Formats: sequence, C-alpha cells, structure tokens
Amino acid sequence: MKEGPSFFEIKHRNLMGRIGTLFTKHGKVETPVLMPVIHPKIQTVTVEELVKEFKVDMLITNSYIIYKDEELNSFARKKGVHELLGYSKPIMCDSGSYQLYVYGSVNEITPDQIIKFHQELGADIGVILDIPSHPDASYKKAKNDVEETLNRAFSAKKNIEDMLIAYTVQGGKYTDLREYCARELAKLDGDVYPIGGLVPFLETYRFEELIEVVFSSKRNLPLNKPVHLFGCGHPMVFALTTALGCDLYDSASYAKYAKSDRLIFSYGTRKLEDLAEIPCFCPICVDYSANELKKLEKKDRQKLISKHNLYVCLYEIKRVKQAIREGKLWELMESRCRAHPNLFQAFLKLKNYKEIIEKYDPLIKPSALFFFSSESLNRPEIYRYSKRLKNRYLPPKSARILILLSKIGEKQYSKIYTPLIDSLSRKLGDRIANIHFAFVSIFGIIPIELENIFPVLQSLAPAELDMDVLNYIEQMILEYLSDKNYDSIIFFQVNHSLDELILKLKKKILNLLILSDLDSLKKTLAQLTIKFKGDVIDQEITCLRKIADYQFGKDAGIALFPDNQSIRFEKSKSTGKIKKIFCNENYLLTLRPDNGYFSLGIYGAKVLLKHFESPKLRVIVDDEASKFVSRGKDVFAKFILQADKEIRPKEEVIVVNQNDELLGVGKAVLNGEEMLVFNRGVAVNLRKGVEK
Amino acid sequence: MKEGPSFFEIKHRNLMGRIGTLFTKHGKVETPVLMPVIHPKIQTVTVEELVKEFKVDMLITNSYIIYKDEELNSFARKKGVHELLGYSKPIMCDSGSYQLYVYGSVNEITPDQIIKFHQELGADIGVILDIPSHPDASYKKAKNDVEETLNRAFSAKKNIEDMLIAYTVQGGKYTDLREYCARELAKLDGDVYPIGGLVPFLETYRFEELIEVVFSSKRNLPLNKPVHLFGCGHPMVFALTTALGCDLYDSASYAKYAKSDRLIFSYGTRKLEDLAEIPCFCPICVDYSANELKKLEKKDRQKLISKHNLYVCLYEIKRVKQAIREGKLWELMESRCRAHPNLFQAFLKLKNYKEIIEKYDPLIKPSALFFFSSESLNRPEIYRYSKRLKNRYLPPKSARILILLSKIGEKQYSKIYTPLIDSLSRKLGDRIANIHFAFVSIFGIIPIELENIFPVLQSLAPAELDMDVLNYIEQMILEYLSDKNYDSIIFFQVNHSLDELILKLKKKILNLLILSDLDSLKKTLAQLTIKFKGDVIDQEITCLRKIADYQFGKDAGIALFPDNQSIRFEKSKSTGKIKKIFCNENYLLTLRPDNGYFSLGIYGAKVLLKHFESPKLRVIVDDEASKFVSRGKDVFAKFILQADKEIRPKEEVIVVNQNDELLGVGKAVLNGEEMLVFNRGVAVNLRKGVEK
Repeated sequence: MKEGPSFFEIKHRNLMGRIGTLFTKHGKVETPVLMPVIHPKIQTVTVEELVKEFKVDMLITNSYIIYKDEELNSFARKKGVHELLGYSKPIMCDSGSYQLYVYGSVNEITPDQIIKFHQELGADIGVILDIPSHPDASYKKAKNDVEETLNRAFSAKKNIEDMLIAYTVQGGKYTDLREYCARELAKLDGDVYPIGGLVPFLETYRFEELIEVVFSSKRNLPLNKPVHLFGCGHPMVFALTTALGCDLYDSASYAKYAKSDRLIFSYGTRKLEDLAEIPCFCPICVDYSANELKKLEKKDRQKLISKHNLYVCLYEIKRVKQAIREGKLWELMESRCRAHPNLFQAFLKLKNYKEIIEKYDPLIKPSALFFFSSESLNRPEIYRYSKRLKNRYLPPKSARILILLSKIGEKQYSKIYTPLIDSLSRKLGDRIANIHFAFVSIFGIIPIELENIFPVLQSLAPAELDMDVLNYIEQMILEYLSDKNYDSIIFFQVNHSLDELILKLKKKILNLLILSDLDSLKKTLAQLTIKFKGDVIDQEITCLRKIADYQFGKDAGIALFPDNQSIRFEKSKSTGKIKKIFCNENYLLTLRPDNGYFSLGIYGAKVLLKHFESPKLRVIVDDEASKFVSRGKDVFAKFILQADKEIRPKEEVIVVNQNDELLGVGKAVLNGEEMLVFNRGVAVNLRKGVEK
Repeated sequence: MKEGPSFFEIKHRNLMGRIGTLFTKHGKVETPVLMPVIHPKIQTVTVEELVKEFKVDMLITNSYIIYKDEELNSFARKKGVHELLGYSKPIMCDSGSYQLYVYGSVNEITPDQIIKFHQELGADIGVILDIPSHPDASYKKAKNDVEETLNRAFSAKKNIEDMLIAYTVQGGKYTDLREYCARELAKLDGDVYPIGGLVPFLETYRFEELIEVVFSSKRNLPLNKPVHLFGCGHPMVFALTTALGCDLYDSASYAKYAKSDRLIFSYGTRKLEDLAEIPCFCPICVDYSANELKKLEKKDRQKLISKHNLYVCLYEIKRVKQAIREGKLWELMESRCRAHPNLFQAFLKLKNYKEIIEKYDPLIKPSALFFFSSESLNRPEIYRYSKRLKNRYLPPKSARILILLSKIGEKQYSKIYTPLIDSLSRKLGDRIANIHFAFVSIFGIIPIELENIFPVLQSLAPAELDMDVLNYIEQMILEYLSDKNYDSIIFFQVNHSLDELILKLKKKILNLLILSDLDSLKKTLAQLTIKFKGDVIDQEITCLRKIADYQFGKDAGIALFPDNQSIRFEKSKSTGKIKKIFCNENYLLTLRPDNGYFSLGIYGAKVLLKHFESPKLRVIVDDEASKFVSRGKDVFAKFILQADKEIRPKEEVIVVNQNDELLGVGKAVLNGEEMLVFNRGVAVNLRKGVEK
C-alpha cells in the first residue's frame, strides 16, 4: 500500500482539468474552487456576506497581517483564525510573500515562525514564505529566489503538524527554473502546490508566458495534489489554466479592482465610467444601473462593484466546472480566448502540449466534439486518433482497392453512402471484400470499420474548413497510405467541398483515380476487381476486430474473435446493430451503441490477459483489495500496485491481483500514471467482478 | 424635405448593427430590444414581474387570442390592451400567423379585421396576418405565401390610423423570394419590418440558411426602419443577427423552454436534469441550486426557469449593445459562434457580405481591433483597407526601392524600426527619399505613411498566424506590387515568423532581395542608391498627402498641401507629432493623434470642395437647414437632399447648400445612403459652421 496520507481525489475530468475533492480539517471542498482573499481587518465584502450571499466554500487570508497586528494576533492565537474571521469552512493562510514582493522585506518574522503561526491559528492550509521573482528578474536572481524558496520549504516540512502545507513554485519566467523548483518541491510531498509570482504576467497580458510557466510547473508536480494558481483571480484565464490542471484560485482582484471602479467580466475588465449600461444580470446589476452606481458614494459603490466582481469570478468557476462535466472545456477555451489576441496566442501554445494533455483526457465524453477551425486541430482527441490509427490499425487483408469518401460538408452522409455501398455490393458480389471504404473528415482518414468510435462519429464540424485543416487532412491521408499496399486508390467525389485537396492529393498519389458519378465508379470497380477471386470474408467480424485493435492494441481483434471459433451476436431489435458478442457461447463483450467501444465481459478479459503481457490493459491491486474487487466493488487508488501507463480515463481496464489472476473488469477514472501515485478516491469503476 | 413621418433613429452602430430609438404612442424604446411574449391570459411570469424585476421596455402579445376570447375581447375593446395587460409602455400586437402556421387556418377573423382590431386595442405596433412558409415548403408554395402576404400588406396599408404597422417578410428558405417580398413591402413604407418564418430554422440549427434569409431580406428593406427577427428568442444568435441589422426580438421561448425544464444560456440550451450545478448568477440561480430547483413543484420550477431564461435573454441584448458601443461586435461574434459548428458556419458566410457590411461600419471605433484567425479576415475593416489602398494610394514619386518590414510577432515594432530607419537615413542622406518603407501585417502591406490610421495602428493580432491569413498577406503584397514600379524590393527579415511567406514571395517576385542583418542592408542600399541623385523631398508633407488621399480620395493630398504654398505645422509639445496644419496661415485641418485621420477646418473644406466635384464628400441640405448648420448646429437627416454615397459613419464630411456653398464641417453619423432615406435623427455631428 502507498505511503502517506492524501487529501485530494478526482471526480470528473477533461483535458488536464479536473473536478476534485479537497479534504481539510474544516470539511471537504469541491475543486476547482475560488477563494476570495479576505483581509483580517478591512473587509469591503464581509465574511458574513461571503457566506450568505455567495455561499463561498473556502477563504484565504494573510497570517502575516494578523501577526503584525497586536490585537488580531492575541485574539487569533487564543481562538484561532476561524473565530477571528467568523467562518467555519476551510481557511488557507498566506504568508506575506506578496508583502515581501511589494515592500522588499518581511522582517518581523522568520519563515519557520510563520509556519508555526499558521498552525497556532488553526489554518487548514498554510503556505510557506516563498520568494517571488519579478518576470523580468535576471536568471541569476530568479535562481537564487528558487533556492531560498526550496530551503524554506525543506525547513517547513520538519515543523508541520495537523495542517495541510502548500509549497509554492517560483522561478520567474524561466521554465527550466520552474521545472526544477517543481521537481524539488514534489519530493517534499506537500499537500497543495501553488504556482506563484504570476500576477505581473496577468496584469501585463503576458498570457503566453503565463501558460508556459504554469505548464512547466504543473507537469513536474505530483499528479495527486491540487495545484493553486496563486494570485490569478481574473476569470479571463480560468478556462485555460484549469485545462492545464489548476485546481485552486484566489481572488483579491474582486475588491482591488473595485477600488478604481473597474468591473470584471469573463472577457475582460471595464471602467464603470465607460459603461452606459452594465451587461450583467448578477443581483447587484439587476438592482443598480450603471448611472445609479456612478452616483453612489465611493464606499457604497466599491462594495457593490466588489460584489459584482465576485459574482462574475465565482460564476466563471461554475462555468468551467460545467464544461468539465460535459467534456467541453476545449470548446469553452476556444470561445473565451477570443477575449484578447494575447490570450488566443497562449491558447495556440497548447499545440506543444497536446501529447501530454492527451494522457489525462478521457477516451469517452458525455457530449459531441465541436470542431471549428485550425486551433481545433490541437485537441488531444485529434492527436489520440492519429496516434492510435498509426500504431494499432491495419486494413483487412482482403482490402485491395481503397475508396475514399468525403464526410466534409455532408450532414447526412450515411444516407448517401449506405445505399452507395449496398449498390456496389450487389454489383460486385464477393469481390466487395476487396474494396475498402474510408471516410475523409477532420480526423484525416477514417477506415469504415472505425466510423462509429468516439469521437469520430460524435463530432460536428463546419462545412467550410480552413487551409490548415485541409492541409492536416491531406497529411493524414498521405501518412496513412505511406505504409499500406492498396492496388488502387479511388477518391469518389460527391460534392465540391474538397476539390482543392483532391487536386493536391492527385499530385502526390500517382495512381489516384478521381471519380464523381456512380456509373463510372461501378464500371471502374468491375474492371479493377476482375482479377480478384473475391475473398469470402465476414465483414462484421472484420469490423469488430479492427475496433478491438484500435481500442485494446494490435491483434486484440484476432485474439477476441479467432477464425476457428464460433462467434455469435445479439443484435438490437430496433437498430439491427450488434450488441452482445459471444465466443463458443461464452459472453465476450458488448459493443456500446453510444460510443462505439467495447465493454469487456469476464471471458473477454481472460482472452486479453492471455494475449497481452502484463501490465498491458491491467490494473494490479494488492491482496487486501482483491476480495472486494472480485465481488464487484470499485477499485480504490490506494490499493493499486501497478498499472498500464497507457490507460486513459474512461478506458476499459482489467483488474488483476499480483499473480495476474483476473478479479474484474471496469472503466478507469484515473489514467495509468495517476493510478501509481494517487492514494485516495476511486481509480476504477468496476463493472463486474469474477465472483457473482 | 422628405415625405412621411418616421419613428426610428440611430444612435450608435457597428457592422450593420445599430443602437437606435423607436418612437411609439407609449414612449420611446432603445433598440435592439427584446420583447417578452405575453399571453393575455396564461402568464408564467406576470406583467407585474416583467416590469418590476426585469424592467422590460416593450411587450408583444397576440390579438388573435384576445379576439377569440369573449371576455378578453370585450374588456380590451373598451379599455385597450394596455389596461388589459396592466402595462403602460409600448405593446406590439401579433396577428395569429403562428396559429395559422401551427393549426393551418385562422377562420374567425379576416386579415383586414385583425388590423382594425389591433387599432381598437390601442396597440403601438400591429402586425399583418402574414403567411409563414415552412423551410421545406416548395418554391411554388412559398411564392404563393409571399403573394398572399403582399396582398394582405397592401390591403392593410389602406386601413391604418394612429398605429405603427409591421409588414412581415416571408419566402421560406428561398432568398430570391425573400428579396422580392422585402422589396415589395419596402414600397409600402411600413414602420417596422419583421422577418418571419424563422423559428424552424432556429430549432433545427439551420443557422446558415437563417443568416442567408435574414441578409437577403434585410438588404432589401428600408434602411430607416427597424427590422424585427420574428420568433428568434434564443440568445445564441443575437450577436450575429444584430450585426446584420436586426433591431427587435421577441421571446416566447423563455417560457416555452421552461415548460420542459430547459434552461437557456448564451451558448445553448441545457436540460435541468443534466446540470449538477447551474453555471449562472442571475438572481434566480443565486437563490436556488440545481438540486433545489429539481425538487420544486413543476409549476414553481417552471416560473423560476422562465425567469432565469428571461434574465439570460435580456442580458445578451445588453451584451450585444455594449459590443456595439465599444465597436467590438465582430469580436463578440467570434466568441459566440463557437457555441455550435453550424453557428460558426453561418458566421463564415459573412465573407460573402463584407462588401455590403462595410458600407455601414464606422470608419473609426472607440477601441482596438482584435484579430484572431482566418475568420477575422472577413472583417469589413480589412476589406475597406484593401479597397482604399488599391483605389486611393500611390507611393511617393521619389520611391525607387521598397523595403518590407514585418510587424507580425513584433510587439514593440516602433522600438525596432524607428532606430533602423534613422540609422539608414544618416547613412544615405538625401537618398533616403528614394527608399520607401512598408510594413507587412494582417492588413497585408502598410506603406509607412499610413501606419497610424485607424485601425492599422489600433489593432492587435497573435504572433502566430494561420495559413489563410498568411496567404491573404501574400496576395495583398502581390496585388500592391502588381501596378507599382519599384526598381528593387527588399524584405528585411528581423525574425522568423514569416519565413515561409518570404520563401513563397521569393518565387513570385523575381527581383526580391531577402536580407536579415543591418550591415548587409546598409551595404546593399548604398550600392543600389548610388545611381540616384537623391530627390530632396519633404517627408512630412509626403506623409500628410498620402493620408489625405486615403481618407478623402485620390489627389486630395496635393490639393490640400500644394507644392507652391507655405504649409506650417503646430506640433504636440509632448509627443512632437503634427497636430494643426496651416496653409498660408489659414487653418486647414488637424491630424488626430488617436485615430490618424484629419479633422477638417473651414479652409480645408473649401479646398476639397474646389478639388472634388459634387456630391463627393458632401452632404447637401435644404435652405431651411442652411442657417442652422452654418451656425454650427448638427445636421438632421430630414433636411438632407443629397449626399455622397461613399460616406461612411464617422467619416469627415462637408455640409453644403444646394448651390454647393459651404455651411460647415462635421462627422457623419449615418452613411451616405442612409442620409438619403432617413428623416429622423442626427445625420452629421457638426464640428464647425462657417459663421462664428
């Protein structure tokens, strides 16, 4: 069993973003969460209002300010910070790093003393007194700041009792320093990992650097710990930074911006004086018009604008959470990043991270993928499809002629292509087995056997595609063909949406035939197939094998559906589609109509265990958990000893004990890498254990 | 003076969208406005709530329902619809077309009777009983529906007294029928023009057709009348349809969707059961969580969801209005159209309309242009720049060598290029006059003289551009060069952002030199310029002339700043930039530091009047208005007899009387075409009249 306690688990996820639970002394909190910064003394919006009107789940305050104030200090030492603030839910205590950054020094207290003071206050989470570096600090200065931060973290570790500790990643704008700092802090097994020193990036719209700094930190931090984007309380970035795995946010800006009459919106900030009307329906803006706000006393106005700002910030977190639940965080980013060209440029950077983001992004999502334009090409789903197609897919052996059919701009392509294929089948008889159909789409090329897998079928794209997308499609077709041996390749052109692409392909594929009416297609195929005897193959079995290869790995198909065994299907009465599949009357697996993947049965899992060497497809649990799993209970992360690193969230997995004996089958919640480090929460939703 | 009364005027505008005022018997209303549909009897949200909680400015109800109900009918005939509903602001009365559409016939009342009934009710706006065609209706059926609608409109016209009349455009999905119907209805001089039969397009996400139908109707309707997008109460489309010139919206969906527990958001609709948390901060969602709503009685829940829906719909109108005021409606569309690929596809259609949209879009906007990716190329500002550059710009005569400098990916290009140009000037002396600098940017090519005009300077773009944008830039450079006679063309490459583009240019421009260090540039220029004598020219005057040409038309520059006259500048003490300009001590004009265009003085206007034939740059007013204008009063549209059709909103114009005598100078509010038809509201904000 894994060492050390843990206070964080994952419930839902999308990209590297996650909805999780953070456990503290004062209860649990759902993340991502926004903690309003509350001054121990001066409160524009009171704690009572935060609780009643905003139902705030967690606060952050500054122990350094409490420490320096004699009255606050003595009260808080006696009664604790919760009583001081009048708040019963979790409180995080910041250390004074910001004061250090602004005023240059924090003299009254040592880094170790502040940790101790956090504990005396009864803080749920305490932050070390880290050293932020200015974005334009020299490399040397930033490196020194990192070293001193690390020293303080190391020293703090020795003194912690009964409090979650937050180790802040620093390193200025230097990604290698961020990586180094994150790696070193990771070793200390903190509970929360803030990424610090980011406010100046945000304030100067240096979003591209912000994203680089966040990503280089995040990818070196423990997967099982929440990450706190320190000081970045503007909703413009929440979608993007949550997609990169940030879980905690704090906001002082709600009150700070209000001081200068600035209103926060999800798409930017506006001065009250520039607004004729406030485009907002929060309770404040429903009660007060722009003119009414302008006429109020400064103090009253400040409070109301603070509240508006807080509504907007808290809303954006909810919006991001909804996008995670729906599997639509990418779509939200595409919309939100249109707030500013610099934010858009930061979003474009995700191109460089897609290989890593793909590891965390669920294989199956609750809703369709919306593809728009070239930026959508950076989606992990697109990358994943190309990788699996390349590594796991081979066309059927009988396939000699490839017919490419465009899905682009065809809303009801099945109504067009099903009759086409049927008509060709009737014409060609057994020789249809030598024809291989594939669709051209935003994913590149889709062999017909894979047309129903998520998100290939479950995607929508505009009819007009931009040049980068067309180039991608071309490149994917060429890559696909580069190691295949079709005798002939035909592009059957039913509309003109891909004319340019087809011309370009023609130049590169010398034997490409371009046809655009059914009669000439039939004639050509009759001529081309005359030399084939016609392999008698079972199209349905072939299709199932290809899906299995794509889902589980190469040759899974032939293992599950071998030539010499009796395979039987149960089909849906309403749709005629294959549902349950049996091998020699043993229930193998089910083909899911909603996402096109298989759900494994016990027998199917046994076949795959035999076929693939450990740890491929496996989650290996300790003996303590074995009996529960075999009885059908979910697999908790802490019992996992080993797992296939290639497992993705929502992937079908096989749970075994240390002797590779089958315990059950289920669906992954965590990816393979996370299973190795998480020691809290469910890692696999079990569908079936081996015992009844 | 123009005929007929008018009840609409324009205050702010962006694209074809406008913030206007509609005048009715029951007061004026700011447009775009959303009218909640209110059932005379069954009200999920009561009129009292609409007034108190939502501050609704206008309602729409159905007179047919009132007519059919004996009790309502007799009350309403006596006391009027305002008393019936308990609402004192404007009310529009619909006719029963929807009932006709759904139930197939409306037997109890004739089309003429319903118009009369609207008037008896005291409706502010009455709608004819038009005939909607289903989107999939045959051409013949749709044409018949249009003819019958036209008959009814014609018949209605004879019977109207003391009520604004709305003539609804029909024609199904057939754009030529829509155009025909709109043109014919336009002749009847209605007060409001609804576009009808759109609900099925909206409900089936046929946004591309929706947009085509809206545009083909709108462009054939009178410019000075408000257009009502009938039945399209979903906020997903508001940005897009307002950008095409729709002013009135109605929403029955707020209550209709609530019946089936559907919540409306600006990005789509969600079923309550699918929401774990409601991503919303409207007063309803602040008070009730998703779970609390789910547990309520059906009736209570329906009311609350209706209210949520109404908050969201009314909010989106405010958001669109804010975008119009800020000049950011295009940016809003880019974000909103990411709600669905079909909506995005509809947005892409604007490419075909940019030539028309450009006519209505202000020359100068209050904020910077945010450019993102290939769709941004369809912006009217980009189109306008390319057109003016082509038609109005010629390089200085002394220009023999063109140096292209890339602005792309260079945030602080002036810090790089100003010293570069200075350094070359020192090196080359007078021969610098033979060098012409131009910047490569998202606009294509920008001759250095035009670098400060709006929105060339006032624009932001990401550092990375997609292929379509790069192709556009290439095409613009080639077009620019196609009719210019530079001896040499040099691309001075300071970063690698445009490497690919430069390679492509090299293939097409045979004499293109590519240089990337200052020394070789200096050396090359020294060699190339050795043959020139060095034209002694005044760089500042040259620059002013080029701006004048771009702003006012070809050769305006030489007319305003002739060679043989004494031109004097007043420069800003802080920036050193030219401000006021005098010719022989007569005040000519001012170069505006914020937008790079000229504001005309009286003397400057006289020069231009002499140079350009009428009606170029002119707004010609009748004698009645002349004396007011010459004393500095704004020009009201109704006094305008003639205007230059090329005038754009925010363009500098010259106001004259019928004898082409100067009355004053000012800035256009309406474009030239609108000035000819509007007879209400300000058409030109006068800066200065000829009399003191």
